[in-house]
Amino acid sequence: MSVAAGYDIQTLINKISEEISLLPIGESPSELYEPIRYILSIGGKKMRPLLAALSYQMYKDNTEEVLRPLLAIEVFHNFTLMHDDIMDKAPLRRGKPTVHEKWNENIAILSGDVMLVRAYSLLLDIQPNKLSVVLKRFSETAAQVCEGQQWDMNYETQNTVSVENYIEMIRLKTAVLLGFSLELGAILADAPPKDIQLLYDFGVNIGLGFQLKDDLLDVYGDAQKFGKQVGGDIASNKKTYLLISALNKAQGETAQELHHWLSATCFDKIEKVKAVTHIYDNLGIKANTEKLIQSYFDRGFQLLEKLSVPYSHKQTLIDFTKQLIDRES
Amino acid sequence: MSVAAGYDIQTLINKISEEISLLPIGESPSELYEPIRYILSIGGKKMRPLLAALSYQMYKDNTEEVLRPLLAIEVFHNFTLMHDDIMDKAPLRRGKPTVHEKWNENIAILSGDVMLVRAYSLLLDIQPNKLSVVLKRFSETAAQVCEGQQWDMNYETQNTVSVENYIEMIRLKTAVLLGFSLELGAILADAPPKDIQLLYDFGVNIGLGFQLKDDLLDVYGDAQKFGKQVGGDIASNKKTYLLISALNKAQGETAQELHHWLSATCFDKIEKVKAVTHIYDNLGIKANTEKLIQSYFDRGFQLLEKLSVPYSHKQTLIDFTKQLIDRES
Repeated sequence: MSVAAGYDIQTLINKISEEISLLPIGESPSELYEPIRYILSIGGKKMRPLLAALSYQMYKDNTEEVLRPLLAIEVFHNFTLMHDDIMDKAPLRRGKPTVHEKWNENIAILSGDVMLVRAYSLLLDIQPNKLSVVLKRFSETAAQVCEGQQWDMNYETQNTVSVENYIEMIRLKTAVLLGFSLELGAILADAPPKDIQLLYDFGVNIGLGFQLKDDLLDVYGDAQKFGKQVGGDIASNKKTYLLISALNKAQGETAQELHHWLSATCFDKIEKVKAVTHIYDNLGIKANTEKLIQSYFDRGFQLLEKLSVPYSHKQTLIDFTKQLIDRES
Repeated sequence: MSVAAGYDIQTLINKISEEISLLPIGESPSELYEPIRYILSIGGKKMRPLLAALSYQMYKDNTEEVLRPLLAIEVFHNFTLMHDDIMDKAPLRRGKPTVHEKWNENIAILSGDVMLVRAYSLLLDIQPNKLSVVLKRFSETAAQVCEGQQWDMNYETQNTVSVENYIEMIRLKTAVLLGFSLELGAILADAPPKDIQLLYDFGVNIGLGFQLKDDLLDVYGDAQKFGKQVGGDIASNKKTYLLISALNKAQGETAQELHHWLSATCFDKIEKVKAVTHIYDNLGIKANTEKLIQSYFDRGFQLLEKLSVPYSHKQTLIDFTKQLIDRES
């Protein structure tokens, strides 16, 4: 039996959490730096630095030495959450008050800004010969994440959104950062260029799968396991993959009924969620979405097969990804 | 008669403006990138890339080759303006609607974010062996500018602010970026480390002088030349150097009268500005402020004397700085 290379998941999570708690964020003025410590401390799965570390340890075994630069991605991700929460006027994040609620909007804007600066600072610790390519790719990815957020806001007020545009939006907003996380780990570990690209593409594919699964769970998830009330997206007419494909498929009376619920200004939430879910059921939206999700996960795992390292080295990454896929399903 | 090294000011301004118009900012989504083109196009003195270019051409003569990375500072500066305007709820910037007024707050947050990313991207074009030090110094400076903005917001609601704290706030918010502009030009031009430090310190000193002069002109400026109504700071109780030193100096009846105007909730603006200016006059605040401003400018020029280059090479920088100092006085 082959032995997986590198640390197991729990050890890595512990090391990453420890390293986060040691980050030199800044002290004064406290209004600027406290919110950063706060948002980094209220949990989250640390999926991005974890994927980066898993990617790294397929090729090298001194993972501790790169943990700090890998945290740039976690700091960047939390910066986007801090600013997105202002834009979405979200009162809660991970069950806790958002920064703009706990402090105020100005503090959330400015703390977020300095987080983006700190994310770059963390990347400066890597080997000088890798700095240019890493910062270029990080900057490209960061701009894409902003583009994805802007498309998402645009689509809120747009009457129709195509499936292609929706997939492109979630690719930019969510998937490319997962891709970059794996890419960064591989670059720092001197992985072959072909492997770096494969790992990036793997990250993008599973990122798309995860986001679509989020959409699915919002309707079909177990409320208790999912950690929030199901049907939120339906109640707010959020243009998810499910709604977009339902709008594409529905005809005649079904289309009329769907549009009735979408344009209703006064409704019972439970009734609307039930009715729209019923429409989704009749149109086969659940099976259709599951099929698409599966195709992204399958494609991702196919890419991993082509990596230059032996299977035993991929095992922890594969196990972890499967664990993420199977959550609350 | 010695001939100044490098381009004259107007030629440099033209080259910088041309280069700004050619910046690859991004296209789609237009809601994200149009505001960036807008804020970069509505004027501004381009003082920072200009100082950087003047610093560079004291040592090297291929200034065109570094203009693009020098624009990182201009893009960064305008990012801070875009976000500061949201925080200050400012309706106008350089006489034109601010981004959050012309579009909306979310767009101003997100466009600003991507501007900060673009500022870093522009710096990636420099020589690889300088990348690490430049990005480290840029990141330190960027964080300091955010700190300065946070102190400025804190001081708005704080009862008393010391002169030392006020000077430290404007150093962070304004002066260090001017210092870094000159530092960046010098680093890129392979200037001796001692000169790099002297130019940074020169920038910080003239930056402090400029900001204090802004405070002074807001009270004692010629409204027409100054481009805005005088007395705005007095009307809004802004804790400028003038008000802070007046509060320190005023005693007895004068102190009472000053506090009366500061706590007045209902007043005639013209009357308040006239009365507080009269208090400043009696306390010698104008002469006092002018003396402090002059000391910063003097210190700045003393530092320039110590540079390793011949006087003829410093001439354009000295002339330009004097020109900035003499504006609307």
